[in-house]
Amino acid sequence: MTTITRPDTFLPPDLMDGLDDPDPFQGLETIASGETKTKSIVIVAESGDLERTWATTILASTAAASGMQVSIFFTFWGLFPLVRPDIRMTGKNWMQKMLAVMNRPGIGHLKLSKLNFAGMGPWMMHRLAKQHGVAKPGELLEMAQALGVRLIPCQMSMDMMGVSADQLIEGVEPAVGAATALELMAEADATLFI
Amino acid sequence: MTTITRPDTFLPPDLMDGLDDPDPFQGLETIASGETKTKSIVIVAESGDLERTWATTILASTAAASGMQVSIFFTFWGLFPLVRPDIRMTGKNWMQKMLAVMNRPGIGHLKLSKLNFAGMGPWMMHRLAKQHGVAKPGELLEMAQALGVRLIPCQMSMDMMGVSADQLIEGVEPAVGAATALELMAEADATLFI
Amino acid sequence: MTTITRPDTFLPPDLMDGLDDPDPFQGLETIASGETKTKSIVIVAESGDLERTWATTILASTAAASGMQVSIFFTFWGLFPLVRPDIRMTGKNWMQKMLAVMNRPGIGHLKLSKLNFAGMGPWMMHRLAKQHGVAKPGELLEMAQALGVRLIPCQMSMDMMGVSADQLIEGVEPAVGAATALELMAEADATLFI
Repeated sequence: MTTITRPDTFLPPDLMDGLDDPDPFQGLETIASGETKTKSIVIVAESGDLERTWATTILASTAAASGMQVSIFFTFWGLFPLVRPDIRMTGKNWMQKMLAVMNRPGIGHLKLSKLNFAGMGPWMMHRLAKQHGVAKPGELLEMAQALGVRLIPCQMSMDMMGVSADQLIEGVEPAVGAATALELMAEADATLFI
Repeated sequence: MTTITRPDTFLPPDLMDGLDDPDPFQGLETIASGETKTKSIVIVAESGDLERTWATTILASTAAASGMQVSIFFTFWGLFPLVRPDIRMTGKNWMQKMLAVMNRPGIGHLKLSKLNFAGMGPWMMHRLAKQHGVAKPGELLEMAQALGVRLIPCQMSMDMMGVSADQLIEGVEPAVGAATALELMAEADATLFI
Repeated sequence: MTTITRPDTFLPPDLMDGLDDPDPFQGLETIASGETKTKSIVIVAESGDLERTWATTILASTAAASGMQVSIFFTFWGLFPLVRPDIRMTGKNWMQKMLAVMNRPGIGHLKLSKLNFAGMGPWMMHRLAKQHGVAKPGELLEMAQALGVRLIPCQMSMDMMGVSADQLIEGVEPAVGAATALELMAEADATLFI
């Protein structure tokens, strides 16, 4: 693992509840031989909805801050939050462009899966989050990256949606296929399909 | 584990299919040393939709009846089914109150994620369930509690939604942050994000 | 495991990325005693939406092609994609029939969870998939079966939806209850609720 400074002041205190318990084995598992093994978690981010992207980024950043190894595999609608904020439009043909028009890329433009009300729902959620010191998904994703979380896009989704690697935010790994993602899942201590 | 009497007559027979197979090691895992370890499952209940809350309560109560240790972490929309049935309204400011108006709290008021038809879908589902001896989510949650399932609300969601501890049903544990939930997940034999 | 021939030409190359790496231990785990153990994955297919059924069938077929043991438990809306394509209507009473009318059974008739646009969304998705050599969910499910993936319907869902065993595609296992599904999950290396 890279040596990183945990940005205590950034992550909302609620998330960190219990993190600073004086447990020297946190995030570690004692295995038969007496060695300890770092815990790992894999998230498949499929939805791209605001609330689920929030869940993904909260869990990923908190897990990384707790010393776990975290990988997120971004697929289907989950790919769009990885698109750079300055990219207004993705897609190489009219169908792919239409997807980007109806489902605007970028983690700052996510919709709620319900009660979206033409953007009023997300606006309320962001205000409520601010009132309670909860970071936005985009901020949490940045922190997750700083803490070493692996961001891995799905090659097939990139092809189908017409999203190219240079349209994604910095620090994203090269896209991989499902076989590689499955290998990570099979080795992980917990796997979440979000 | 607390000593509980399994309420055989309550849980729908379909769920219990295979439960009474004469396997003395059910719910147990033989580890290297020859000891056995109780299986554990963690559910993150994020959705709050009728069908997914049903899945959560069916899996949780059945797993507990099978001798597994079960914890449910209620977050985002998933928090509302934990609100007491006599509480009509939650929220401390107008935005939080509006969420409770649009998304009525309480496990007896859940909507389907599709085919809801202004309540006709859930009414049909409840009728079909009754015809086939399937318990309602609220009954399954009660049974889950009786069987020792841990119900753990997410602190951040309670803050954001403006839900206070005294508005939740009895027997719910104190709210925790994502770090605590992740520790449970990393130790569990299976983790489901529902 | 049954001896099967992996249909390399069928599975989209993207999915197989990394599959043919010369790693003799792929899909295997070395345990304390020096033996190796085949990795296993359990998917709970709850949604029945086009994109999530795609995710289920891609992950299942790819995992099986990688040598993993895969089981899919089909429940709630996830049951409908298992219905035979020549069955237009399921259900024994008017409520169950109405569900089948609103939510047409069969893996060739799935809707997107969003941007469905009365069928235009799925049509576009299928065209984009064809352009990029991605197999349809129905084709992937067939391949999954050929590779030994276990397709297990939920008994309670079949009862509630009024779907009978003879209405399901060939090769599906007898329906089971949640207890049996949970046993599989507790033993699996990864569990996904999709």
